Amino acid sequence: MNITEGKEALRDLQAKMSAYEHAMTSIFYDGSTVAPKGTAANRGQSLSILSEEQYKLTTGEETVKLLELLDANKAELDDFEKRQVELLIKSIRDMQKIPMEEFVEYQRLLVEADDVWHTAKENSDFALFLPVLEKMFETHIRFAGYIAPEKKPYDYWLGEYEEGLTTEICDKFFGQVRSRLVPLIAKVKNANQVSNDILHGDFAPESQEKLAYYLMETMGLDLDHVGLSTTEHPFTTSLGSHFDERITTHYYTEDFSFSMFSVIHEGGHALYDTGSRDEFAYTVLDGGVSMGIHESQSRFYENILGRSRGFTSFVFPKIQELYPQLKNYTADDFYRAVNRVEPSLIRTEADEVTYCLHVMIRYELEKRVMAGELKVKDLPNEWNRLYKEYLGVDVPNDKLGVLQDSHWSGGNIGYFPSYALGSAYGAQFLKKMKETIDVDALTAKGDFAPINEWNKENIWQYGSFYKPNEILEKVLGEPFDPSVYLDYLEDKVKSVYGV
Amino acid sequence: MNITEGKEALRDLQAKMSAYEHAMTSIFYDGSTVAPKGTAANRGQSLSILSEEQYKLTTGEETVKLLELLDANKAELDDFEKRQVELLIKSIRDMQKIPMEEFVEYQRLLVEADDVWHTAKENSDFALFLPVLEKMFETHIRFAGYIAPEKKPYDYWLGEYEEGLTTEICDKFFGQVRSRLVPLIAKVKNANQVSNDILHGDFAPESQEKLAYYLMETMGLDLDHVGLSTTEHPFTTSLGSHFDERITTHYYTEDFSFSMFSVIHEGGHALYDTGSRDEFAYTVLDGGVSMGIHESQSRFYENILGRSRGFTSFVFPKIQELYPQLKNYTADDFYRAVNRVEPSLIRTEADEVTYCLHVMIRYELEKRVMAGELKVKDLPNEWNRLYKEYLGVDVPNDKLGVLQDSHWSGGNIGYFPSYALGSAYGAQFLKKMKETIDVDALTAKGDFAPINEWNKENIWQYGSFYKPNEILEKVLGEPFDPSVYLDYLEDKVKSVYGV
Repeated sequence: MNITEGKEALRDLQAKMSAYEHAMTSIFYDGSTVAPKGTAANRGQSLSILSEEQYKLTTGEETVKLLELLDANKAELDDFEKRQVELLIKSIRDMQKIPMEEFVEYQRLLVEADDVWHTAKENSDFALFLPVLEKMFETHIRFAGYIAPEKKPYDYWLGEYEEGLTTEICDKFFGQVRSRLVPLIAKVKNANQVSNDILHGDFAPESQEKLAYYLMETMGLDLDHVGLSTTEHPFTTSLGSHFDERITTHYYTEDFSFSMFSVIHEGGHALYDTGSRDEFAYTVLDGGVSMGIHESQSRFYENILGRSRGFTSFVFPKIQELYPQLKNYTADDFYRAVNRVEPSLIRTEADEVTYCLHVMIRYELEKRVMAGELKVKDLPNEWNRLYKEYLGVDVPNDKLGVLQDSHWSGGNIGYFPSYALGSAYGAQFLKKMKETIDVDALTAKGDFAPINEWNKENIWQYGSFYKPNEILEKVLGEPFDPSVYLDYLEDKVKSVYGV
Repeated sequence: MNITEGKEALRDLQAKMSAYEHAMTSIFYDGSTVAPKGTAANRGQSLSILSEEQYKLTTGEETVKLLELLDANKAELDDFEKRQVELLIKSIRDMQKIPMEEFVEYQRLLVEADDVWHTAKENSDFALFLPVLEKMFETHIRFAGYIAPEKKPYDYWLGEYEEGLTTEICDKFFGQVRSRLVPLIAKVKNANQVSNDILHGDFAPESQEKLAYYLMETMGLDLDHVGLSTTEHPFTTSLGSHFDERITTHYYTEDFSFSMFSVIHEGGHALYDTGSRDEFAYTVLDGGVSMGIHESQSRFYENILGRSRGFTSFVFPKIQELYPQLKNYTADDFYRAVNRVEPSLIRTEADEVTYCLHVMIRYELEKRVMAGELKVKDLPNEWNRLYKEYLGVDVPNDKLGVLQDSHWSGGNIGYFPSYALGSAYGAQFLKKMKETIDVDALTAKGDFAPINEWNKENIWQYGSFYKPNEILEKVLGEPFDPSVYLDYLEDKVKSVYGV
């Protein structure tokens, strides 16, 4: 095989990998959205076979030889191909170190865990979830040992979601965050609380769905290529390439704001993915590079734009049109309600200020379980203890506690810190963006086009081409600095509470 | 490889084939139900790659050798394995005769055709559909030539849907049907027409959905394993095995009966598929054996049971509960309305009596195009001419004419005759069933359990183990006789029109 043939084989390989990914994601997505509830084992059967085929394709001799050839002839590759080869070699080396039966077994575990978690959460039954959760942590520790025996297992997984991230960096980051958030939250506690009555009532899901599509269009999502479905827990996924993106939400009749901000959050993920260069489709460069950068976009749209004074004023008349019972409220009431700071139980419903503490709790628990310092069976007690210590709230049951998130059942151990990091990246992106764009004026008009253009130009178009730290350097031109985010949060508190 | 290993490899092969089938069906199903409208090409990309993998698996040397080994040692196989080997050898021999590129190209055509047909139907634009429809017929002729050059191309495809079916058999069957239906329809024309006003009005889709689930439960479908979605054109499909079955419907606000009978029809398919023995899952024996037997079940539930006097009386109070505007109608009004005989434009909305003429028109057109006697571009004119000749109706546009069905865009040329044949099988099954079961009394109570048991015992459990003619012989104990069906239709007309 010569280099020209090698380049073609590289494209074909990635197209094939994308097709398997598409197939498996489609089966998963179906399972989360519309599948009848007794069908999880059936999906597990097919997914375990498909993942075996995927494993063989990815780690097979033909693939390994191809990548060796290309790696040995790097000089003849263009920059995109170089990065493709780099990413592929990494993932293949990782995968090769996991015995195939264990890889396949893990795919089956993912389906089972998703299924069991749904029932366990519904019934607030941690004991039901315990065996699969133990298996999940145990598998993550074991796989990390295969792939990167020189690292702490948790460091390996942190790096999977954010290249280069370690517990050391996280400890430092969260330490800095905590040192300024704790006094900030104390300040709010002593101020007059704002009302969020406006968010609570009886809100027909049909109107929430209309609002969701309105928000998607306002944000500039291309509805020909981005779909919306409902699931227990909102998420975003690509099917095959960024040409088919799906976001999901959940309508609670008692609070329309949950779905509203979920849609904007997931919409931010979808903007990032669908903003990849078209030529990246069906290659490993397609879609966002890391969960940290991903969350910097989703939480940027959700909070920095979505909960801004400008955007809340812009969108409130539409909300009143859909829910006439809100006619006596003002846009300012709405702005204050969606920015009310209050320690609470559920991460996805938390305000911007206390949010990072929810993440910290998960980070600390994962870190300790992965290090063997905490038993999985003791997670509920520790969860509840930390919620009391950090947030001052009593957790009444595991449904509202340790069972609330889908990340562990979804095999995403090490993901949580990305939410906090991403929030902090986003604030620093905002500062940079404001040097050339009047973000406040644009959101007040619901005009996202120039903002999206800036993000596409600087971040989205590159998909996974640049590493996370390269993106940060390139965009910011200065080191990552969490204090920008903490300044932003203090400003927000001032504008809502006047303290 | 010894026989024991061969048997295990046979199971593994079929499990793998089921997984590919699951993957591709899942992508298709997503495309028909919830995918954003600009994503067809993206699905085509993945499906063409997956079908290439499927092709390689099915026709690969390893598979061929395995089946040769098993075929040479038939004596050591059990009956189920024998039939599996027989079916696999047939499908592999067929597939091997199609060049892989053409097989893959065809998968891509299927996605394109589905997409183009939707738009063409929406805009009543046959010209838009013409190029892909030409390609579809041309491909079917070419593939039949590869696989069975000794047969007429149309005969090959008829046999694909109903083993052993030929144009000769169809011509005879439709001749017999026509000779009694034409005078029957003339009789109705001279009688006093019954009203179907009851079916027309403003029927909220939400209540139609409630009715759909009520019907599914009443029919005895296991909602843990059978899902319901909405699509342009109702269909039924299995995902991976009979453990996950999906039916779809379409809600027209102006007529609730369309969705109602679609659900019962598709529910009949689903009962058949999900009634397969569990041990057949992930083998080629899983699910119904032929489209003729499939339609015998779907149309049995839809018409013979669903439109019976007993069942219409049973279900009408529920319909009145969902649609209080019907409170002044009687169950008898409802019975007569859903059995009103009237030549019309749309096959899926046709009454039982004129239905077979809709099928005949499609049969004749397919037969002539496949024989090169009619050009694809002339289909609209011929369609309209035959509707005038057989049914006496004027087709106002192609949306209500030649573009109405999804079969051609779905690659199902040769399928239509199964609807008529299946209807006739169903009437003969009813006659047999009535020897031991009081069908009328049961449907009047909405008690489907003994009927389902009879069908499961006699038909469903066998999946694809018995050939269609073997099923007929085994169940009926006498030759297939369309006159039973024609007697049934005459009785129905008498009970509704008194003539």
